[in-house]
Amino acid sequence: MASMLLSRQLTCCLQQNSRLLVFGHRYISQAAAKIDVDFDYDGPLMKTEVPGPRSRELMKKLNGIQNAEAVHFFCNYEESRGNYLVDVDGNRMLDLYSQISSIPIGYSHPSLIKLLQQPQNLSTFINRPALGILPPENFTEKLKESLLSVAPKGLSQVMTMSCGSCSNENAFKAIFMWYRQNKERGHNNVTKEELESCMINGCPDYAMLSFMGGFHGRTLGCLATTHSKAIHKLDIPSLDWPIAPFPRLKYPLEDFVKENQQEEARCLEEVEDLIVKYRKKKKIVAGIIVEPIQSEGGDNHASDDFFRKLRDIARKHGCAFLVDEVQTGGGCTGKFWAHEHWGLDDPADVVTFSKKMMTGGFFHKEEFRPNAPYRIFNTWLGDPSKNLMLAEVIKVIKTEDLLNNATHAGKALLTGLLDLQARYPHLISRVRGRGTFCSFDTPNDATRNKLITIARNKGVVLGGCGDRSIRFRPTLIFKDHHAHLFLNIFSDILANFK
Amino acid sequence: MASMLLSRQLTCCLQQNSRLLVFGHRYISQAAAKIDVDFDYDGPLMKTEVPGPRSRELMKKLNGIQNAEAVHFFCNYEESRGNYLVDVDGNRMLDLYSQISSIPIGYSHPSLIKLLQQPQNLSTFINRPALGILPPENFTEKLKESLLSVAPKGLSQVMTMSCGSCSNENAFKAIFMWYRQNKERGHNNVTKEELESCMINGCPDYAMLSFMGGFHGRTLGCLATTHSKAIHKLDIPSLDWPIAPFPRLKYPLEDFVKENQQEEARCLEEVEDLIVKYRKKKKIVAGIIVEPIQSEGGDNHASDDFFRKLRDIARKHGCAFLVDEVQTGGGCTGKFWAHEHWGLDDPADVVTFSKKMMTGGFFHKEEFRPNAPYRIFNTWLGDPSKNLMLAEVIKVIKTEDLLNNATHAGKALLTGLLDLQARYPHLISRVRGRGTFCSFDTPNDATRNKLITIARNKGVVLGGCGDRSIRFRPTLIFKDHHAHLFLNIFSDILANFK
Repeated sequence: MASMLLSRQLTCCLQQNSRLLVFGHRYISQAAAKIDVDFDYDGPLMKTEVPGPRSRELMKKLNGIQNAEAVHFFCNYEESRGNYLVDVDGNRMLDLYSQISSIPIGYSHPSLIKLLQQPQNLSTFINRPALGILPPENFTEKLKESLLSVAPKGLSQVMTMSCGSCSNENAFKAIFMWYRQNKERGHNNVTKEELESCMINGCPDYAMLSFMGGFHGRTLGCLATTHSKAIHKLDIPSLDWPIAPFPRLKYPLEDFVKENQQEEARCLEEVEDLIVKYRKKKKIVAGIIVEPIQSEGGDNHASDDFFRKLRDIARKHGCAFLVDEVQTGGGCTGKFWAHEHWGLDDPADVVTFSKKMMTGGFFHKEEFRPNAPYRIFNTWLGDPSKNLMLAEVIKVIKTEDLLNNATHAGKALLTGLLDLQARYPHLISRVRGRGTFCSFDTPNDATRNKLITIARNKGVVLGGCGDRSIRFRPTLIFKDHHAHLFLNIFSDILANFK
Repeated sequence: MASMLLSRQLTCCLQQNSRLLVFGHRYISQAAAKIDVDFDYDGPLMKTEVPGPRSRELMKKLNGIQNAEAVHFFCNYEESRGNYLVDVDGNRMLDLYSQISSIPIGYSHPSLIKLLQQPQNLSTFINRPALGILPPENFTEKLKESLLSVAPKGLSQVMTMSCGSCSNENAFKAIFMWYRQNKERGHNNVTKEELESCMINGCPDYAMLSFMGGFHGRTLGCLATTHSKAIHKLDIPSLDWPIAPFPRLKYPLEDFVKENQQEEARCLEEVEDLIVKYRKKKKIVAGIIVEPIQSEGGDNHASDDFFRKLRDIARKHGCAFLVDEVQTGGGCTGKFWAHEHWGLDDPADVVTFSKKMMTGGFFHKEEFRPNAPYRIFNTWLGDPSKNLMLAEVIKVIKTEDLLNNATHAGKALLTGLLDLQARYPHLISRVRGRGTFCSFDTPNDATRNKLITIARNKGVVLGGCGDRSIRFRPTLIFKDHHAHLFLNIFSDILANFK
């Protein structure tokens, strides 16, 4: 089902393009720059309950070939634009969840449409190379234009991967190699014994320290550091790696300054104890992994001071400090990387990303560079078509000042949520957020899910996290007026909630 | 650097499209069907040594931001067509490695170009959804058109993933869940204790049995089943999972019938012993993973009888039988899946794929379906733009009868290699293959690498595997005449080899 609107945009662009093509490619991108068709919709428009009849029919079909019970509804992405997600029953919803926080600049952004229409980009989408051995000519250039232009301070090296889990898995590997090379083996050569024993899984007993409530992916290595929900881990064999408590802050923060400081100190002490305890049993903590805001685990925040001290502990014990920015990265907190808020003197050692970055991957300091080829490697190592789109996304973020927008719109959202919390304290508590990365708690799981369902039927897509939180993960083009629109709708919902 | 030729094709198509767009989308795909520009080149064309000066310059730049020592050369994918890979120095090479076996129908295939040009497909490339919760309207339809139309016998269920490693990792998880649910827990509910202990990595001690020489990916779970090269595993902590020997067949097969039967019997016996031994130490082998032809490990074959007996052992001991078709799948052996050659009575339980399938993922029997949502899940669960391209690729494979072509061209290649082996037995041994999935051994690593380098400078891209093998992984549009072209070039190389 093609969108009439998208098709109007396209007709226009294609006609421009084909007229210009006779003069060569170079002119196309400039000429196509002007797209005067409205991009965002002006509000939700609901026609059926959600999921509607067409979605239910499609769910049944999908369920024939895989477990489809997690499906919310089926979407019409051709009709979806900006902050609005349109479903197959013609319902148009303000999307504050944006595909689990993975749509950076809204649906069907004109800049990405243009990118796809430029003939010189076509090859990048259909000829997917093995990037580690046969990269395209513009590979380094696109990485510089995109990822390296927003690299966290001090991290000059970057590897791309296909998804968030692969990013963390490979970051772990880079850390284990670094530990062995820099802390133990020194410049000595690898022994014959090491080369033989590793082939039959006889490898050093390194570990990553993670936090309760953390989420770092679902492949076996990542899953050993994920502790957000039992359903992620049940029945899957794991590794004996240390797990520290993550602070459970009390809100409002200003009323619990001392308690929260004590709570953070307790957690940090436990981190140090675990590192020592595990070393005693010959399991060496090579790295610490942490999210700037624990997202899947319930939007759990800690203070900037907590993270600065955690970084110090990592350095003190010779552990690598890995910041997982898969969900927090890409600008939604008002800085490109959430950990930039901490004001670290010594940068993180490794930073992983995915989701809104279009490609997975990780940045790292030069000392974490593998000392030989093929150590961090796989067939695809990401996808240059995603790098191409990311370069465009970053251009849009810069041109449209979307980091400041996230700060501004986030403030409107958070202020409104605090107001709702004051008016409906029995329904809303622990309002918290940074940029548009906001959330609040509800009394329990059932109430949370009911609120999400009601909101959806009023034209707002929300997501849950933890056991009773609602999280906001809008795109970067979510503006103040979208915040007010949501707050109005949600205020009515709360007023009528039984 | 846009290709003049690709741009001529595009100009033509775009002009057709924009004229037709006024009548609506539906007409475009039909009108665009006729592309009369030649698709494949007619031979290699070498201008510099490879890597040439431009490649070397780009390598230096890339090496500034990541270890680039594995890079062979930089490519001009816009100019690459069919079986020919063009580099940034203008060298055009017959590509028998096809991006580590991951280009199904050649570079810049007209059908994929058309697909990208159809406005109704644009949204699929720029609006990447979270497939597990908000799939696009055509999701099931595209899976049926693509993956399910070539599903191995008896496997009605399919999940998509972003890469080969994620496919195997998630297949392992599905197997562990199945084992717990079907063999142990029965229909009882999960206990509170299980839900709590899994959160702190206290999970059942299940294992996957794998084979020496096998390669199943490089994330931590996969890596515990990978035993092809030390460089993949060095310094990475692993799991105590059983590793069985894989048959080392003697060639020519007809001269060593009895020895090879004994070798296969020895390996199968060891598989059974390991399952029993590991169960005794309370580590339960929930599944067996095997490649139809061990690819990275050196193109190690075993007989169809070996695999049928292995399947029987899996059944006898209640283990799931997982066939990893990441490299062998997609048609290159002359059947869509290499394990179809075995003639199994009882199908494999799980089959994983990636590479030439454009998307990762796995097929499985219905009993391996997770019993609840979110158990096999991640943000993206693959990429619908890859499913769209795969549907087109499969259409081309069927229309152009490319499975029979692989059998035919493979026979031409294998016959020629056997002839070269007879003429140069000091350089070529153990010639083996199925379809175009062929290989031979050289005397040693140094000779192998020298042959690959010489071939590249004569306009043929080859890949190595194991410690001294050369493997052939051409695209599915590799024809008899490409085989003859290669054989002529390689015959000259061998004649002059010092």
